Amino acid sequence: MSDSAELARVATIDLLGALAYGEITAFERMAQDATMAPTIDDKVALQELAALELAHFQRLRAHLAEMGVDHTEAMDPFKGPLDAFHEATVPKTWLEGLVKAYVGDGIARDFYGEVAQFLDDEPTKELVREVLGDTGHVGFVVDRVTGAIAAEPALAGRLALWARRLVGEALTQTQRAAVERDALIDLVSERGDLAELIGLFKRVTDAHTQRMVTLGLTPN
Amino acid sequence: MSDSAELARVATIDLLGALAYGEITAFERMAQDATMAPTIDDKVALQELAALELAHFQRLRAHLAEMGVDHTEAMDPFKGPLDAFHEATVPKTWLEGLVKAYVGDGIARDFYGEVAQFLDDEPTKELVREVLGDTGHVGFVVDRVTGAIAAEPALAGRLALWARRLVGEALTQTQRAAVERDALIDLVSERGDLAELIGLFKRVTDAHTQRMVTLGLTPN
Repeated sequence: MSDSAELARVATIDLLGALAYGEITAFERMAQDATMAPTIDDKVALQELAALELAHFQRLRAHLAEMGVDHTEAMDPFKGPLDAFHEATVPKTWLEGLVKAYVGDGIARDFYGEVAQFLDDEPTKELVREVLGDTGHVGFVVDRVTGAIAAEPALAGRLALWARRLVGEALTQTQRAAVERDALIDLVSERGDLAELIGLFKRVTDAHTQRMVTLGLTPN
Repeated sequence: MSDSAELARVATIDLLGALAYGEITAFERMAQDATMAPTIDDKVALQELAALELAHFQRLRAHLAEMGVDHTEAMDPFKGPLDAFHEATVPKTWLEGLVKAYVGDGIARDFYGEVAQFLDDEPTKELVREVLGDTGHVGFVVDRVTGAIAAEPALAGRLALWARRLVGEALTQTQRAAVERDALIDLVSERGDLAELIGLFKRVTDAHTQRMVTLGLTPN
């Protein structure tokens, strides 16, 4: 295998491993946050989102197995950063949990979706698009958060602060993961020019800002 | 509608409501207990069991909707007893969580399965059989518990005590639910003779004893 092909393979496994462990922790976090729901239907809606993340994990695990890769080994390097992210951002209220689900998953979706474009492997790209694109349930999050802010406008400032903290922690831990596992960064650097990279980060940032506007949280 | 038909309808709704809320709380409990798993694969196995319970809930909710019944109203009478059961039996260890999943679901499955035989409504009976029969994952529970006891025989006594407490709390809360909602009991009394009732409880008890033997926990 050429160095570039080997790099692409390692980067692919890293991407799948990070996504897979992300799905498990997302299940865990959403299932926990669902216990704070004000109604049974709200609880079930977040439980259903959690179950969707687990279904994504199952597909990623199957795909890794097809590649001959042990899913636990692929996930292992990302356990530290992802656990640290969740430990640093435990929601204290139902609404904080919803904002975390929406903002956190949104950034992860955009970022990994962009990075996946640099891979060669078409089935992997297709799978990543699928597990990241399946967002049928997020309408309920937007509905609940905007409804709560309409009823109590002071919430907007507090939740905006919370969202900034989420982004800050996500950046910190992404950086930490990138230092330990640099194949994805190397792949993007090898295959993309600076303008592409700047474009990538701009799109991720713009999409985040748009989500903040959608939630009724002032961007900054 | 005749009195007997009306009783059967109320009993059917109660059965579906109790099962539906049971599935939601089972999801919640198993998702929480999964955080104590010793390995990622064990965690995922219990998360998958939790997701299966949620899928059952979704089918029960759809069936209630087809009957023109609001699922939250159907579940409401069983919220108190089921919440109380779970609050009184929070597992402190991974193994206690597994025993609870196995023993608790087993008794619920046997009991509701027996009661469902007294209903007239064939689609409901079929659905109840399906959501109760889907036990493909419990092999993993038996495997983990018997493995742990083989490695540390002293666990058997502690886990047997825990199982007895689970059964005691389940009986207490079932009795409480039966006092508040007596349609199921009335239906069984109306349609079954004493010998049938005794047979029903004996089968449920025998199946529980058999599960304790399967787990390597001495019956008593």
